[in-house]
Amino acid sequence: MADDEEEEKYSILDEAIAARDGSALLAQAQDFHYADLAHHYENLDDEDRDFFLKTIGPELATDVIGELPSSLIEEALMHFKPAQLRIILGNLSDDDRVDVFQVVSEENQRRFFSLLGPHDEQLTRNLLKYAEDSAGGRMTTFIGRITADMTVKQAITVLRRDKDSAETLARIFVVDEQGRLVGKVRLRDLAFHPWPTPVADIMEDADERVLATVDQEEAAHMLSKYDLIVLPVVDEFDHLLGVITYDDAMEILQEESTEDIEKLAAIGGEQSELSYLNTTVASHFQRRVFWLVALAFVSLASGYVMYRFNEVLRGAYALSLFLPMVVAAGGNSGGQAATMVIRAMALGEVNTGTALRIAWKELRTGLLLGFCLAACMACFIAFLLPLLMNQMDVSPSHLALAVGLSLAAQVISSTLLGALLPIGARSIRLDPAVVSSPSLASTVDVTGMLIYFSVAGLILR
Amino acid sequence: MADDEEEEKYSILDEAIAARDGSALLAQAQDFHYADLAHHYENLDDEDRDFFLKTIGPELATDVIGELPSSLIEEALMHFKPAQLRIILGNLSDDDRVDVFQVVSEENQRRFFSLLGPHDEQLTRNLLKYAEDSAGGRMTTFIGRITADMTVKQAITVLRRDKDSAETLARIFVVDEQGRLVGKVRLRDLAFHPWPTPVADIMEDADERVLATVDQEEAAHMLSKYDLIVLPVVDEFDHLLGVITYDDAMEILQEESTEDIEKLAAIGGEQSELSYLNTTVASHFQRRVFWLVALAFVSLASGYVMYRFNEVLRGAYALSLFLPMVVAAGGNSGGQAATMVIRAMALGEVNTGTALRIAWKELRTGLLLGFCLAACMACFIAFLLPLLMNQMDVSPSHLALAVGLSLAAQVISSTLLGALLPIGARSIRLDPAVVSSPSLASTVDVTGMLIYFSVAGLILR
Repeated sequence: MADDEEEEKYSILDEAIAARDGSALLAQAQDFHYADLAHHYENLDDEDRDFFLKTIGPELATDVIGELPSSLIEEALMHFKPAQLRIILGNLSDDDRVDVFQVVSEENQRRFFSLLGPHDEQLTRNLLKYAEDSAGGRMTTFIGRITADMTVKQAITVLRRDKDSAETLARIFVVDEQGRLVGKVRLRDLAFHPWPTPVADIMEDADERVLATVDQEEAAHMLSKYDLIVLPVVDEFDHLLGVITYDDAMEILQEESTEDIEKLAAIGGEQSELSYLNTTVASHFQRRVFWLVALAFVSLASGYVMYRFNEVLRGAYALSLFLPMVVAAGGNSGGQAATMVIRAMALGEVNTGTALRIAWKELRTGLLLGFCLAACMACFIAFLLPLLMNQMDVSPSHLALAVGLSLAAQVISSTLLGALLPIGARSIRLDPAVVSSPSLASTVDVTGMLIYFSVAGLILR
Repeated sequence: MADDEEEEKYSILDEAIAARDGSALLAQAQDFHYADLAHHYENLDDEDRDFFLKTIGPELATDVIGELPSSLIEEALMHFKPAQLRIILGNLSDDDRVDVFQVVSEENQRRFFSLLGPHDEQLTRNLLKYAEDSAGGRMTTFIGRITADMTVKQAITVLRRDKDSAETLARIFVVDEQGRLVGKVRLRDLAFHPWPTPVADIMEDADERVLATVDQEEAAHMLSKYDLIVLPVVDEFDHLLGVITYDDAMEILQEESTEDIEKLAAIGGEQSELSYLNTTVASHFQRRVFWLVALAFVSLASGYVMYRFNEVLRGAYALSLFLPMVVAAGGNSGGQAATMVIRAMALGEVNTGTALRIAWKELRTGLLLGFCLAACMACFIAFLLPLLMNQMDVSPSHLALAVGLSLAAQVISSTLLGALLPIGARSIRLDPAVVSSPSLASTVDVTGMLIYFSVAGLILR
């Protein structure tokens, strides 16, 4: 759709809200996907939200609430009376309902439980036992479930009964009498086989499965690697508990990438589920201030080295021309190496066991980078600099040697350090991305100062 | 599955390959998902690859080749004789086949075309017209397609004929007599409705669709936002051409995140489709050297500022204690701001139109961060530093004032610059991530030097 048309749709919606015109709002809301309505809801102020939610009715409100960022859910539900809340909580799919119970206050949790039917209450209490970021905490139990001794006709009868509650029937799971997962069939195979065919004849293996306790990211990676629409979640006895769906996997993978990107930029804390512009300044401040102050104190170490070596700099002030460069080259090359290794780890490509092979690869890459950069700079200093500067307190060839050598040493050591620190962090069970480029840069700033002044001190004295 | 078991499976596979034991390899390969086999194939040497591909047979080889990184596909196909190639090329799904034709040499493209049946050849030539990274270049045409005037029974008959070639029947698309997309039905609705029901009665709208020419990332974001299993791809007249599936979307989103992360770390060029360890040192070097050298030359500007202001530093050498910190704080705070804005843009949350709102938010965040950090450091210098250092060539209170003021100015200006540069880049159609934290850091290094020496020069003279 053209952007203009899009914008007009939104402005009609906004006008209806501003004019408190219920029937116009209701008519216009039908033209939107509920994901778009949820996104737009974020931008409304409190009174507009109240009017919006009450007007669109509990049915559509359920869909919208299922798409809201967690931090807005509780407040959104507070707009409704108990009778409507009962409808909304009952309408939510089981995984969305658990998300609601996970984020509301204890008092509201108790109140909401009292609004659920006994079956929904039991189901929600069971799901709440799993950690929020585990496969169990993310799964839905609304699945198609048949047994191997059924015929195709019996299976279709069972599924027809369940069809409206099942999140997807693209894959239907086959369990034994104890509820253990034994296989899967595709709806197309049921639909296109003669009715008397036994399910056992058309069933396939369901080898891909995860334990309910594994991290949601591991589950998402399996879905992505094996191109699955749904991944069955089981307990340690292989009982089928539920499934994780492809759309959850996409969301988890996106969250994970955002988290890694933010950590690499020294942004701390939980990522905001609100969009950038709807996140408060206080929250933006909070997530950045810790690392900013911590890194500033680390930088004092570089300052101390510079202070201690003041004789070297006073003796040949032309050294200052290249000091920022030598230091920054370490941060840049170290950051490149760390990023490559951290991303490879995130994609499950490398692990601590391959540390030696990574070190060997980075050492060679670092050597090439270090000598290449050193050669460029040495040539620049030896041949071009004398033409640009009228007088210098040091001979160009000595300066070229000092800068070249320390630059090579700095790039090689930083590249190696950048590659090995994430591996070291992982091996002591720290998150590799914590060794973010800013922390790494602050560390190699110190080595850069030390290397530069030591080398220059030796060559120029 | 336990890791030990996993490892044993792989070592049996490796032994079978090393021993050139065809039947053992064949037996063991059946225990693996083809995605795992493709991943393992990367680690084999050329002779092992030859034995492996020829042993597993063209059927399984097709699945494995469909999962290989593009750079390995051509070489893999060269292991086969024309008769086997004909089978493999014929077995590939249409989107995987186009991927093959996109990456092989022109000579091989001609040769491969001659091995295709006339229908497959025509199909492949049509798909090759779309750009590799467009929705059209990524779609599959193997979809369930019915018309609204059919009954459920007629639809099922048509679909039964197509069921083995359709990539997914989770959604079946309804077209008019000209092939224009008019709606969709779910297989479950066909399977559970009485046979005489007209398709028109159970069909839903298919509002979500993309033009074949849009970027694949836009298509992937739509799949993710609307939780779709398949997204129809149409031409400008709404003719249904094919679909993009959820697994393509996951792959595209992952590739996109990796690309952004790499750009943020100043790693250039196309991301390697090979895993980290299978990428050569030369290729690692190539992707990093350009930015490393370019950024080094940018750093010369900081060096020049430092050189020009040598009088200030000589006059109060204690300034050097805080020089690296003031400079680094700019890089860190600017990098944080840039990362937040770039990620928000990648997730489609903000655009150039909201530039003013972003600037206002970052200005306030930067003010808070700047004054907070400045206050910390000023207190440290005024109260703690005199206890740590016996003698200094400048009064602590003057130093605290100089460092505090320049630190605040540096953080505020860098935060604002970090937020605005990506927006500026986007508005002139550059990739925002090109303004990566290293480039930004090198830029604000210069401003940091300038601010620090100017402020200190004024206060301490």
